[in-house]
Amino acid sequence: MSLAADLIIHPRWLIPVDPANRVLDHYSLVVRAGIILDILPQDEARRRYHAPEVFELPGRALIPGMVNLHAHAAMSLMRGLADDLPLARWLEDVIWPTERKHMSPGFVRDGALLAAREMLRGGITTCNDMYFFPAASAEAFSTAGMRAIVGLLVIGFPSAWANDLDDYLRRGLVVRDQWQGHPRIGFALAPHAPYSVADAGLERVAILAAEMNLPIHIHVHETIGEIDDALASSGMRPLARLERLGLLGPTLTAVHTVHVNETDLALLAHHGCNVAHCPTSNMKLASGIMPLAAMLDRAINIGLGTDGAASNNRLDLFQEMRHAALLAKVTGNDASAAPARAMLRMATLGGARALGLEHVIGSLEIGKHADLCAVDLNDPLVTPCFDPVSHLVHACGREQVTHVWVGGEIRVNDKHVMLQIDDNELLARASLWQTKLVS
Amino acid sequence: MSLAADLIIHPRWLIPVDPANRVLDHYSLVVRAGIILDILPQDEARRRYHAPEVFELPGRALIPGMVNLHAHAAMSLMRGLADDLPLARWLEDVIWPTERKHMSPGFVRDGALLAAREMLRGGITTCNDMYFFPAASAEAFSTAGMRAIVGLLVIGFPSAWANDLDDYLRRGLVVRDQWQGHPRIGFALAPHAPYSVADAGLERVAILAAEMNLPIHIHVHETIGEIDDALASSGMRPLARLERLGLLGPTLTAVHTVHVNETDLALLAHHGCNVAHCPTSNMKLASGIMPLAAMLDRAINIGLGTDGAASNNRLDLFQEMRHAALLAKVTGNDASAAPARAMLRMATLGGARALGLEHVIGSLEIGKHADLCAVDLNDPLVTPCFDPVSHLVHACGREQVTHVWVGGEIRVNDKHVMLQIDDNELLARASLWQTKLVS
Repeated sequence: MSLAADLIIHPRWLIPVDPANRVLDHYSLVVRAGIILDILPQDEARRRYHAPEVFELPGRALIPGMVNLHAHAAMSLMRGLADDLPLARWLEDVIWPTERKHMSPGFVRDGALLAAREMLRGGITTCNDMYFFPAASAEAFSTAGMRAIVGLLVIGFPSAWANDLDDYLRRGLVVRDQWQGHPRIGFALAPHAPYSVADAGLERVAILAAEMNLPIHIHVHETIGEIDDALASSGMRPLARLERLGLLGPTLTAVHTVHVNETDLALLAHHGCNVAHCPTSNMKLASGIMPLAAMLDRAINIGLGTDGAASNNRLDLFQEMRHAALLAKVTGNDASAAPARAMLRMATLGGARALGLEHVIGSLEIGKHADLCAVDLNDPLVTPCFDPVSHLVHACGREQVTHVWVGGEIRVNDKHVMLQIDDNELLARASLWQTKLVS
Repeated sequence: MSLAADLIIHPRWLIPVDPANRVLDHYSLVVRAGIILDILPQDEARRRYHAPEVFELPGRALIPGMVNLHAHAAMSLMRGLADDLPLARWLEDVIWPTERKHMSPGFVRDGALLAAREMLRGGITTCNDMYFFPAASAEAFSTAGMRAIVGLLVIGFPSAWANDLDDYLRRGLVVRDQWQGHPRIGFALAPHAPYSVADAGLERVAILAAEMNLPIHIHVHETIGEIDDALASSGMRPLARLERLGLLGPTLTAVHTVHVNETDLALLAHHGCNVAHCPTSNMKLASGIMPLAAMLDRAINIGLGTDGAASNNRLDLFQEMRHAALLAKVTGNDASAAPARAMLRMATLGGARALGLEHVIGSLEIGKHADLCAVDLNDPLVTPCFDPVSHLVHACGREQVTHVWVGGEIRVNDKHVMLQIDDNELLARASLWQTKLVS
């Protein structure tokens, strides 16, 4: 007798991102109540299960929904606002003044919704975000039907969102309380960076994170200037200072970590810290190149981040997988460095693990949430396909994504994004903000 | 009275790639007999011209069709055949044996057709190609309705195409004679590389190129090993040897030029040589990073190349523009290096100039061929747009290309590729070859 399920997907390839790096040919995935109920050969699946929703996806690879381990989603409204400028002028002359002038819950909600649409369309089902007005971001991710860890920002200067350290924390924790129990929205503590939060603030973050079981999301060692300044003012490298203040551990995600010496790498490895690698942002802002191969060698857990659209300018993890691989190959003089399987793992399970979600998302495994992405490897643009995994990294783009599910619910169907807000309204809102920003 | 034309296009932005780097807002482009007849404000265009074909393209940027300055189109049938392998194993264990076993006019024709479809879909209207069986490539480009400069390969070892130096040249020139007068297909002499063609061969190429007014297309200084070997065997760097043999000049396109010292740069600049920059291939094969900023500083003419799909694995000049910019920024520690306008110029007029075609294609100018590409900057994935040119480089991908024309004839219409061969047949042929290649 056939068993009842909610959703059955029959792709050509099923790539679970499991320890053996298997690529399953002609397997099916069965979902019930948003959870992966079974993974089995296609002919068996057709005999054993029935469901109201069945997707026949010949030529498609089914992979885990991707995890964007570092974003400032709302900054999508500033996409490309100040390209080709040196970093200091980019920040000081354009980005910060624009934020000071326009920051509001409406700006954040509309920007995050635009970002969520872009991420879902490209197969990203979970976002680790950091920005002002976290309730507005949470609302946007919730509306879009994405999974998100919303960062409760802590930064040492006043903004439209909060006045000082206490205020950032207090307001942030109120937001967290309000969203308690939401099935897809969680929170992290997000001290902006070692240089922008004083010791007292970082210590409070460490204590609160431990007490409340929250991950920590922080920019670390993004530029050489950040390290030089820290050495000049405190005599310590920022990572060493974070260790002294008790922040390093397996719940911390260190974003960028471009400039890391042997001691820094040993610290990250010893404490089991996670790294959010943002290769495109690091290149575009001329920050530097993170030593990915050295980190992979040390088994440091790595995820991939897009950073905000003002410094990338795409929220596209296919691009980040490719850039991570290409940069590691050319900087290591080794075409076999950063193999495709490791890149796909970073874009999925690596990000999930960094967020403490490795038991619920990040791979296709019975009992996990059905966060899924189907990619067309039979598109003439990427034909022929000799190795589905290397194709995902080196040949495909997000334009080959055809279907996306979050918790078994469809978000992208045959390339059409299924949002509660339609594209014309979203474009109209973005256009309004654009007019304000340049006025 | 209204004047008769064949085609009128009303985009939102018209980016001619002219000396002033203008972006024309609400201008129109008028075509008659395949040639750009006029470029003028949209309201004037509506009053002054009528045509049977009128395209209203709100939200679109109209740019020159892009020029792929280095490809091995037929290698698309080997896309991703041997990823993540070191360069020597990639070439010696996989690519060369596969070529030896399967090389035939049918392989080259089918592979080049697949490549032409991919290039046209992504806005590439001209391809500078180098491969065996040039007649088969010419046939594919002609069938696809692309413009191409087909390289007449000269290489110091026998292949299914030719036996020795004389044979390569003789057969190549026969092909050229057969295609004489074709409106879109031209030829170049394509000595493979300094290390694979002896002095006598290179000297004959130099003489023939001058006599017959043919451009020269050659791989140069791709890897550090190539230079070390040359120094060990001849005491000369390859570029110095090419100078001695009379090959350097404004009709030569040096492909890759990754490893160039001050003397090399001075040689390239002094002789007015062109460079084909292939950043993705150089990264993926771990060849190295070309010093783009140093070349731009010396006003060396630069175009962009995809290389073959076995080493890239996309024939996508949007990707190459982005990679060129990102690499130059991060290696130069300068976020303002390699500005977007220079990248777009490389992808269009730079390539055209290298091929001696700067008077007929590469920019939108009255009297030039109407090789055109429309890109949707109003797609929610790339919204908002503050600067159309930086958007083309950093936010868009080829998936935003909506329309492509070659000589005023439409090749991509609203994202649909208009080939004489349909996608199902093309996929079936690719699938047949794939089965043969892995057997």
